[in-house]
Amino acid sequence: MTIRFALLGAGRIGKVHAKAITANPGARLVAVADAVEKAASDIAAQYGCEVRTIAQILTSADIDAVVICTPTDTHADLIEQFSTAKKAIFCEKPIDLSVKRVDECLKVVEANKTPLMVGFNRRFDPHFMAVRAAVEAGEIGTVEMVTIISRDPGAPPVEYVKRSGGIFRDMTIHDFDMARFLLGEEITTVSAQASVLVDKAIGKAGDYDSVSVMLSTAKGKHATISNSRRATYGYDQRIEVHGSKGSVAAENQRAVSIEIATEKGYTRPPLYDFFMTRYTEAYANEIGAFIAAVTSKKKPSPSGKDGLIALVLAEAAVRSVKEGRAVKVSEILG
Amino acid sequence: MTIRFALLGAGRIGKVHAKAITANPGARLVAVADAVEKAASDIAAQYGCEVRTIAQILTSADIDAVVICTPTDTHADLIEQFSTAKKAIFCEKPIDLSVKRVDECLKVVEANKTPLMVGFNRRFDPHFMAVRAAVEAGEIGTVEMVTIISRDPGAPPVEYVKRSGGIFRDMTIHDFDMARFLLGEEITTVSAQASVLVDKAIGKAGDYDSVSVMLSTAKGKHATISNSRRATYGYDQRIEVHGSKGSVAAENQRAVSIEIATEKGYTRPPLYDFFMTRYTEAYANEIGAFIAAVTSKKKPSPSGKDGLIALVLAEAAVRSVKEGRAVKVSEILG
Amino acid sequence: MTIRFALLGAGRIGKVHAKAITANPGARLVAVADAVEKAASDIAAQYGCEVRTIAQILTSADIDAVVICTPTDTHADLIEQFSTAKKAIFCEKPIDLSVKRVDECLKVVEANKTPLMVGFNRRFDPHFMAVRAAVEAGEIGTVEMVTIISRDPGAPPVEYVKRSGGIFRDMTIHDFDMARFLLGEEITTVSAQASVLVDKAIGKAGDYDSVSVMLSTAKGKHATISNSRRATYGYDQRIEVHGSKGSVAAENQRAVSIEIATEKGYTRPPLYDFFMTRYTEAYANEIGAFIAAVTSKKKPSPSGKDGLIALVLAEAAVRSVKEGRAVKVSEILG
Amino acid sequence: MTIRFALLGAGRIGKVHAKAITANPGARLVAVADAVEKAASDIAAQYGCEVRTIAQILTSADIDAVVICTPTDTHADLIEQFSTAKKAIFCEKPIDLSVKRVDECLKVVEANKTPLMVGFNRRFDPHFMAVRAAVEAGEIGTVEMVTIISRDPGAPPVEYVKRSGGIFRDMTIHDFDMARFLLGEEITTVSAQASVLVDKAIGKAGDYDSVSVMLSTAKGKHATISNSRRATYGYDQRIEVHGSKGSVAAENQRAVSIEIATEKGYTRPPLYDFFMTRYTEAYANEIGAFIAAVTSKKKPSPSGKDGLIALVLAEAAVRSVKEGRAVKVSEILG
Repeated sequence: MTIRFALLGAGRIGKVHAKAITANPGARLVAVADAVEKAASDIAAQYGCEVRTIAQILTSADIDAVVICTPTDTHADLIEQFSTAKKAIFCEKPIDLSVKRVDECLKVVEANKTPLMVGFNRRFDPHFMAVRAAVEAGEIGTVEMVTIISRDPGAPPVEYVKRSGGIFRDMTIHDFDMARFLLGEEITTVSAQASVLVDKAIGKAGDYDSVSVMLSTAKGKHATISNSRRATYGYDQRIEVHGSKGSVAAENQRAVSIEIATEKGYTRPPLYDFFMTRYTEAYANEIGAFIAAVTSKKKPSPSGKDGLIALVLAEAAVRSVKEGRAVKVSEILG
Repeated sequence: MTIRFALLGAGRIGKVHAKAITANPGARLVAVADAVEKAASDIAAQYGCEVRTIAQILTSADIDAVVICTPTDTHADLIEQFSTAKKAIFCEKPIDLSVKRVDECLKVVEANKTPLMVGFNRRFDPHFMAVRAAVEAGEIGTVEMVTIISRDPGAPPVEYVKRSGGIFRDMTIHDFDMARFLLGEEITTVSAQASVLVDKAIGKAGDYDSVSVMLSTAKGKHATISNSRRATYGYDQRIEVHGSKGSVAAENQRAVSIEIATEKGYTRPPLYDFFMTRYTEAYANEIGAFIAAVTSKKKPSPSGKDGLIALVLAEAAVRSVKEGRAVKVSEILG
Repeated sequence: MTIRFALLGAGRIGKVHAKAITANPGARLVAVADAVEKAASDIAAQYGCEVRTIAQILTSADIDAVVICTPTDTHADLIEQFSTAKKAIFCEKPIDLSVKRVDECLKVVEANKTPLMVGFNRRFDPHFMAVRAAVEAGEIGTVEMVTIISRDPGAPPVEYVKRSGGIFRDMTIHDFDMARFLLGEEITTVSAQASVLVDKAIGKAGDYDSVSVMLSTAKGKHATISNSRRATYGYDQRIEVHGSKGSVAAENQRAVSIEIATEKGYTRPPLYDFFMTRYTEAYANEIGAFIAAVTSKKKPSPSGKDGLIALVLAEAAVRSVKEGRAVKVSEILG
Repeated sequence: MTIRFALLGAGRIGKVHAKAITANPGARLVAVADAVEKAASDIAAQYGCEVRTIAQILTSADIDAVVICTPTDTHADLIEQFSTAKKAIFCEKPIDLSVKRVDECLKVVEANKTPLMVGFNRRFDPHFMAVRAAVEAGEIGTVEMVTIISRDPGAPPVEYVKRSGGIFRDMTIHDFDMARFLLGEEITTVSAQASVLVDKAIGKAGDYDSVSVMLSTAKGKHATISNSRRATYGYDQRIEVHGSKGSVAAENQRAVSIEIATEKGYTRPPLYDFFMTRYTEAYANEIGAFIAAVTSKKKPSPSGKDGLIALVLAEAAVRSVKEGRAVKVSEILG
């Protein structure tokens, strides 16, 4: 069985998914849609698929699944439409910036009983997968404390920041999901502090560029997240899980691992400086997991609910900063 | 000029300081006092000094400086007495578990204008000193975020925990001081979460064994601290400072740095498993710094006030856990 | 311009090259030949190319270049035939096990003025390329001493060993080429010692499994090579170049870089245990370089002569072991 | 029982041993002798011992053991005299630059049945000891190949070089001993190549500054040594033992282990740049081992014979370079 795909959105991340779909023997890219005609026709030419409109794809009988890479504010509507059209859906995070809207959207998907997977690509990074595998194999005993350090090479343009929903919904959301992935139980309280240390323009736009977060579960397990919008040395992505019998950590990644020794010391190159090169394998694994789930008719993971919870945690963090207190997740979800 | 020392308290840490004093060409150990006579006479025999009572030392004209290693609840009284007797004082942390008592005590010292240094040994670890030196040399630009991971090899006996003042005043206090040492500006708010994951008996004694802390300065700089009372792999002591131009970190330390490769992987030995072996050089450097300060009539650092502020931060952390909110340092100090 | 390829030999390494060719936008795989029909038809099916005989390919006007992955004893003949047929040739190492035969073969290629590249894939490993780039950028000053440690995960079957030409021609040959690649000048003397420590059957077959080699250039630069047919911890591939101003080294590679800390120590996973996974990127880069050279009508590198010299060094090593002396390269080439 | 010491030679290395002796509870430094009176009186003042002449020490009843740190050309004579005077002897390497002279000297010691230990300090480095302990514990199976990389921070003055006996007897001799220490069986053949790459003046003085050595045992085990008189990045001292079940290696050492990350990469400080700071612990352990052996009336190790064999290997290396062939150890010893 081959899953026949349509790609909605032929931008930067759309291209990554197009490549992963076409390289996967269990899938075929049938159609692509994009508001910018050239973007769609380029992908169509490269991979030998058709350009169609979203309306056409909605009624295409030769499409089993869609990958949604359109702008965030279209995600929820598209999910509802394609779920109703009985297509399997892979949607880039976030589903929406509003918890309420996501909640409504997921109800439609649930009613339609169609598969929905949300694009938390980091769950598919081979190093992070190996960390979780070690945890699940019991190598560090019971999980107690998760430490996530996640820093971007540089701050995005202010125009992007303005539309992003803020750093917690745009950047930390990946770390909220990673914390849940590694803790193995639900987070109940969120404390956050945030400031503007990198770019004053980000502050003027009402956002932060440097944040710290503490998370707690009902059993008292901890997770901490440290985010900065600037790391001169590259894309800093470290996770560590501390448990009753030990600890497991994933190191940072670089393109070449050489070391030069001179009178000034021993120097290794900076890290990958772009999320797409850092997470190349993760993106391919992610689409592979979606294809495998749809093929075997299993529920894909991370699910729409995983997307919702990460957004709820982001909302709790926003409130924690504003009110200077630990916010219960139940306050947001209730 | 040779500083003539009396050692008050001949226990575990007293012995460390006795060794450091006698090895330092600028100092001489003249007398030792301990409630347990054998403890004192052992040190006297080993280093060729006299056993005296504390009362005798208070009036000894041949003593310039005392090192206080007696139980915590005697520190403040001894500081006041020896300051009034015009002796230079090195006191193990903490001065007292009560902010009010420390404050009173420091007023006496201030009135007497006598030197007082508080034993935050980690400031003198060569690796941590090198981190701060790199920061001060501007190698990472402006400091933005400090990350401290500090985990003990194993939980102390519950009897110790009961007298300790709680994990924030006993263990995290070192990290509060380290955060200040590295941030280079005062901390204004403290958020903490704490739980019992290692030993239920610690919980029954009213304390915690696993804590996370977020600190903020007036300028919005961050520090985070992660503490656990148990790390199977040794004494886990890591610091990292992230700045506008880069980052600097001190790695964990082990007695031997070999690596064994087999079909199971590449294995390096566990870390030092005891604070005294981990911080051997730090203790010697610390006493050296005290001797140098007294000799040159400069104010020793870390000062009594540094001891007070670390205790205030601990108190703020306790309150933050209780009340589930960010606590302002000014609430405690006010 | 698109280079149209035929693949000669559809075995393990043939598949690797088929994948690299089809993924390269500057090339197209037109035909495949293999003595085992199923091997050829599988590749034809997967990549949409034709199955042809070698004889057919020799006269195919729609083929610009061939990749020779057939058994070693056919290489020289095929090179001569396809060179005469004016095809560009990429040939897996070695061209032949006999220096004389290689020399004759290269004369044919030279007469035909056709491009010939020999498959020393390690020159295209990104880490080793970065080492050489650092050397060429002058970061370590003048090159003085090259150290190569190259160990296989496990010994090959004795049947393979018997046909291999011996460890120097089969395994060390890669390291001879790497030494030349890094030294930047020709090797003039070879000293080698060899023994059987891994598998006595290898000794019975007249070969060795553990060898050390010292190389010297006319200017007195050194290179050392350490080879073993067994490394329980994976495919051990390290190079280091020491120069007047410093040193540069490439570290070993593993699939996932996590570290687990327990009471037994800190453990990272074993290395890649197979040359094809270890050198995945190298193989792709290698074919890319061949395509780029053919497209731009530049001489491909490593050349046939590079293949010849590596074989000469292997022959010198064999003689050095036999005669217990340093052998001059001119003795072999003369 | 306390071993009463006299120190012969109060230079750089004499001071290191004086410190180790006085810090050891099983020993007492009674006397010191040096041709330069001030050198002797400085040590006498610092450690409260007497200045005596060598002649006086030879007849001093209150001296049990001597530490010989005088110039190399006096070692053999002093060993013979003090052995005849029934003193235990620790002698800095080498005993003499002539194999014949060492051989005669050891016969005297044997006849007198007095303890003699030769100063191969590296055997007492905690990291190298841990490597050997891992080997002896069977963690890597049967030893097969030893790799030693040993590079000095900078070349010594030519005047030193002229008196040194040449690089093999002066520098490589430590590595010959280390190879034997790690191989666990005797070396039977030596192949060496040597050149002048660092300092032409060394070449004019008839010596080399860059050498490679291959060693073999009767069972076919290998050891390789790479020496350079210049490593800009510090005192490069690495050992690795490869065995049937794995490998064990000791990493280089530096004073502080921090890492700074900037846009230029991740940088750790250079290595220790002086053998005395690099091997501080080794020197103290070494004297401790000598004291323990003398106290317990056990034969100290490394012995005079270990000193002899290392010198024989150096001589074999010299001959190998000259004659361009593998030299059998039996050729030298015979």
